[in-house]
Amino acid sequence: MTCQQSFDIHSRGRGTIEITAEVARIVRAAGVVTGIAHVFVQHTSCSVVLTENADPSVRRDLETLAARWAPDGDAAYLHDNEGDDDMAAHGRNIVAGAAVTVPVGHGELRLGTWQGIYLWEHRTMAHRRRIVVTVIG
Amino acid sequence: MTCQQSFDIHSRGRGTIEITAEVARIVRAAGVVTGIAHVFVQHTSCSVVLTENADPSVRRDLETLAARWAPDGDAAYLHDNEGDDDMAAHGRNIVAGAAVTVPVGHGELRLGTWQGIYLWEHRTMAHRRRIVVTVIG
Amino acid sequence: MTCQQSFDIHSRGRGTIEITAEVARIVRAAGVVTGIAHVFVQHTSCSVVLTENADPSVRRDLETLAARWAPDGDAAYLHDNEGDDDMAAHGRNIVAGAAVTVPVGHGELRLGTWQGIYLWEHRTMAHRRRIVVTVIG
Repeated sequence: MTCQQSFDIHSRGRGTIEITAEVARIVRAAGVVTGIAHVFVQHTSCSVVLTENADPSVRRDLETLAARWAPDGDAAYLHDNEGDDDMAAHGRNIVAGAAVTVPVGHGELRLGTWQGIYLWEHRTMAHRRRIVVTVIG
Repeated sequence: MTCQQSFDIHSRGRGTIEITAEVARIVRAAGVVTGIAHVFVQHTSCSVVLTENADPSVRRDLETLAARWAPDGDAAYLHDNEGDDDMAAHGRNIVAGAAVTVPVGHGELRLGTWQGIYLWEHRTMAHRRRIVVTVIG
Repeated sequence: MTCQQSFDIHSRGRGTIEITAEVARIVRAAGVVTGIAHVFVQHTSCSVVLTENADPSVRRDLETLAARWAPDGDAAYLHDNEGDDDMAAHGRNIVAGAAVTVPVGHGELRLGTWQGIYLWEHRTMAHRRRIVVTVIG
């Protein structure tokens, strides 16, 4: 059995937005008892990630690390059409990825206690981001 | 057809533990001829990765690199509740990921000759880590 | 329904080769209406990634970043059997990953407008790389 559903997230520039509840709702509605949920973002300058859901300072520290993994406005970049954060965003998308897959059991997401699913916007400006969730079992 | 099974790994602190054999056993028992095996860890401070299975120095060098991707006790971290390796572990989990998906063919994992599946513990202390394997085909 | 197909890519050393068209062809032939396509490379020194498909300078800048994530010939590496780019390639494989999973809808890959699928060769020499595509729905 397969169920696919899309939704949009309006980011407010760089930072994380939790989407666990939206994904959990789609999984419940899918009626898949055992399987996987694939959460995919159709863009190359933001990410979908799993990370710690208790202390927001974890996500602030991830920004600190991301600024080293792919700094804004690096002199070595050739691609800067859309500004200093353009190539930085593509680099962070490679490091953090565009999708996560989570097991589904008893019709629910089988996340660990401290795992949340986040859209991570890497651009400094607000963007509309399309997320596609596919539940298979 | 879908089959899901969990098991625990007791890590002995930072480092890698090969889990290819356990995953291969679950895949064989699942009876899925063609499909995928999703190997997921329910934590945000360790990883499940695919890497070179022949020379253990590759995994030691990965620790060297990880110490640059997300150093212990960095002065910039806000999150250090559980010590110097706390935020470092969350950062490495983002870089290396929490899950891998491997194709299944003829009822077996279709890994390359030099690919092994590893739990990579990022915390310095020993931890019990729960792994969920889902085989779909 | 599940369909699995493999193909080889002959890389010409470090750099990216777009494989979106090959994957799209396999997805169409699979006849899966709704599901996922898993694109996996059976090696630990190259990657399969999703990235921006319009401006080739993005992929050149990814090489610039990769050279920082896992530099060639780093004095700290223990593993250098096959030269300066050996461990660098394994490190980049961990950062960028070995596989991507893309949603399938209406029998087609549901990529965003600017997303392409690439084999990213991390070794400096040419290699034959085996890719396994599994379509499930």
